[in-house]
Amino acid sequence: MKDKKQNILIIGAGLCGSLLALRMAQRGYNVSVYEMRPDLRKTDISAGRSINLAFSDRGNKGMKLVGLEEKVKALCIPMNGRMLHDRDGNTFLSNYSGRDYEYINSISREGLNALLLDEAEKHNNVNIHFNKKCQSVDFEKTTAYFQDTITKREFIEDADCIIATDGAGSALRRSYFLERKFLFSFSQQWLSHGYKELTILPDAKGAYKTYKNALHIWPRGDFMVIALPNLDGSFTVTLFLSFNEGEYNFNNLTTPEIVTEFFQKEFPDALELMPNLVEDFFENPTAPLGTVKCSPWHYKGNTLLMGDSAHAIVPFYGQGMNASFEDVVEFDAALEKHEGNWENVFSEYEKTRKKDTDAIADLAIDNFHEMKDHVGRAIFQDKRKIEMALEKAFPKAYSSKYSLVTFNEHIGYREAMIRGRAQDKAILNMLSDGIISTEAVTEETLQKVKQETEAILEDDRIAGLH
Amino acid sequence: MKDKKQNILIIGAGLCGSLLALRMAQRGYNVSVYEMRPDLRKTDISAGRSINLAFSDRGNKGMKLVGLEEKVKALCIPMNGRMLHDRDGNTFLSNYSGRDYEYINSISREGLNALLLDEAEKHNNVNIHFNKKCQSVDFEKTTAYFQDTITKREFIEDADCIIATDGAGSALRRSYFLERKFLFSFSQQWLSHGYKELTILPDAKGAYKTYKNALHIWPRGDFMVIALPNLDGSFTVTLFLSFNEGEYNFNNLTTPEIVTEFFQKEFPDALELMPNLVEDFFENPTAPLGTVKCSPWHYKGNTLLMGDSAHAIVPFYGQGMNASFEDVVEFDAALEKHEGNWENVFSEYEKTRKKDTDAIADLAIDNFHEMKDHVGRAIFQDKRKIEMALEKAFPKAYSSKYSLVTFNEHIGYREAMIRGRAQDKAILNMLSDGIISTEAVTEETLQKVKQETEAILEDDRIAGLH
Repeated sequence: MKDKKQNILIIGAGLCGSLLALRMAQRGYNVSVYEMRPDLRKTDISAGRSINLAFSDRGNKGMKLVGLEEKVKALCIPMNGRMLHDRDGNTFLSNYSGRDYEYINSISREGLNALLLDEAEKHNNVNIHFNKKCQSVDFEKTTAYFQDTITKREFIEDADCIIATDGAGSALRRSYFLERKFLFSFSQQWLSHGYKELTILPDAKGAYKTYKNALHIWPRGDFMVIALPNLDGSFTVTLFLSFNEGEYNFNNLTTPEIVTEFFQKEFPDALELMPNLVEDFFENPTAPLGTVKCSPWHYKGNTLLMGDSAHAIVPFYGQGMNASFEDVVEFDAALEKHEGNWENVFSEYEKTRKKDTDAIADLAIDNFHEMKDHVGRAIFQDKRKIEMALEKAFPKAYSSKYSLVTFNEHIGYREAMIRGRAQDKAILNMLSDGIISTEAVTEETLQKVKQETEAILEDDRIAGLH
Repeated sequence: MKDKKQNILIIGAGLCGSLLALRMAQRGYNVSVYEMRPDLRKTDISAGRSINLAFSDRGNKGMKLVGLEEKVKALCIPMNGRMLHDRDGNTFLSNYSGRDYEYINSISREGLNALLLDEAEKHNNVNIHFNKKCQSVDFEKTTAYFQDTITKREFIEDADCIIATDGAGSALRRSYFLERKFLFSFSQQWLSHGYKELTILPDAKGAYKTYKNALHIWPRGDFMVIALPNLDGSFTVTLFLSFNEGEYNFNNLTTPEIVTEFFQKEFPDALELMPNLVEDFFENPTAPLGTVKCSPWHYKGNTLLMGDSAHAIVPFYGQGMNASFEDVVEFDAALEKHEGNWENVFSEYEKTRKKDTDAIADLAIDNFHEMKDHVGRAIFQDKRKIEMALEKAFPKAYSSKYSLVTFNEHIGYREAMIRGRAQDKAILNMLSDGIISTEAVTEETLQKVKQETEAILEDDRIAGLH
């Protein structure tokens, strides 16, 4: 098979596409990548896309697969927990795990993407073409139709197979939907909230103006601000807010006065760190937050959707990039098993993977509510305290839902979701009934939580759920 | 307001559109209806659409609203329960309710639609135009673009507001989706199974060949056949089967021999009643089964989706038509409250209604699995026995999920779903744990089921679900 030097066409050289290109090159395929944007190593094209991202264990599996774990580490800023900010500017650090060695990282999208492109281009069998926008894909003929965004020249490329890693607005997915040649299940769900990026600049000495090693959150029930650190001493700040509901919303924040008033009232300590707030606010775009699911991902052995093109999710679990990197790992395993028969590779990959990307999509929406609202409520805070204590006292015996999703990369998202939700339900109900408390978290607490979790899972099983 | 004689344009004169037209005429509006098909009172256009339907209490609310309850009763054939047929031809009647006065009805789509059209046309302020296919809607200008399917003439109509009752393939919904002028959440989900209609003809004397007053089911785990009676002594039979999975599927049932072999093996008693099987099988189309959800349904006060155009569901709860008729009742209530301000009418209607149509969509998919599979399993049969006994012994104190959905039209589908699912879970788990049994269904059983149901609902509430 490898002697045949099959030609793989990848649409999109973002994080997923460039990792996939690198891996396919390592496997000996001829890889052509077409990207609609200019080369981000030569041009500043950050506008409208998130500047930094949360990088964690599932993403790291992808880096290990291609031998880049150490190089990526140099780009990472560890974030050990959530730093919560109340309206009075009081802060409270809530660790992501009771185990010190479990944390997530802030990483630059541009820096990581550039590294992956550089590594891919070290292979002679990889060619990356920028400024080539895919218009549509003929999945019967396995050809893709492009336009050069500079010369406007239009052209068609064919390949032995086409893999679309062209993001939430995927051209291949649109072709699947519009052509109506097979039954294509599809959903796009928008949140009521949008987001806007802002910045906390470094201080005069280039240092961080607030605590570096945390993901900062200003939860306010119906809206929130978050901030992630960058290597240059700045933080990228994101405001999540309804488009048209509530006293303040994106539709009515139309003047510098109202924007300042809103931040003064709701986020005074953040406002102090952002003298540039008004400028950023009116310069940067407001973007919507959507979830995309679809099926099938592949058409025969000809074409395949991967990454955000197959499963765009909202950012609230910090798993978008990690899920896309894990896609490449799962795809590589399916390829290892069925190499030589693309239809079997694609079909095995979708069968093993889709249940997990459906789960992380749902978990990400759960976390939207958790981050903006639950983190501020007493019973959820008590749950968190108990889980931190359990993880600290019994590091090998207990993992919270957050840990299962984020740090237990050996189990799938779906298993993490089912077990994690049952645990949450067990702890919240036992807290409510006074069966456990934050006062004394002991071996007995652990056993009670485990037993109640199993009982919940068993009840669901008998009822024919899951 | 009523003096202004506002012009309402309705797209689609199916069951929902014709009921809506009648109701709006009763309220004094000028109503124009455009239907793409010929007038079904003059032409046979049954092909490809289900011939008969299940009509029950929620649908009857719509009939009461317009004063047609008695006229519709004449079209109904009561079905008191499910008649289950096993492979050996043994039958077992499982009632829909322990209360004798609760049953569903088989009704002819054509007969009911014709009645509604006749009644609507009795009003001078209603005009119905057939053979006019809507191509798209300009929801900013409140105009609809049509083509006459016979003359091919194209024309534009405007109105004070446009309501699309044009079914699962709605032109207005397509315009919402493709125009991208606002954030439109949309999903279409296809089942792995399709369906094909067949017929059990009357016997030589014109009589029913099998028991008339039941919905017949031949459940076989991965597929099933059902049959509903018609007034002329025939039954309309539907085969639900996977397109491409299992030993027999729609893709491989390609010859008369294989089709006969399949029925001989799986449905021998049905085959005996259908000498015309092979002819029907190869003449009638195979159709897919899809669920459509979307939001928002309305654009300002200009346009609104109603019925299947807003929420197409699979047929397994027998609630598609009933939900559409209940739509008209709910819409009428919103109109009563906000008449004079279409935007408020539409927005109130969607707010109160969407949670319920989302719920019946999910319930209908649950019932797909229940009908083809669960009805044949011992624990689910025991649950059904206990529920029948409870309904019989305590008719005012207990209603099963099926009863809540079908016969408790004073509560919404969502409440019926939440309570019904909790009850199912309670009974299945208490059966599994030996806490209740089918041997003795007493007042104590009722109390246990009620307590356990409440406990399940409370646990979910504390965990932040629902």
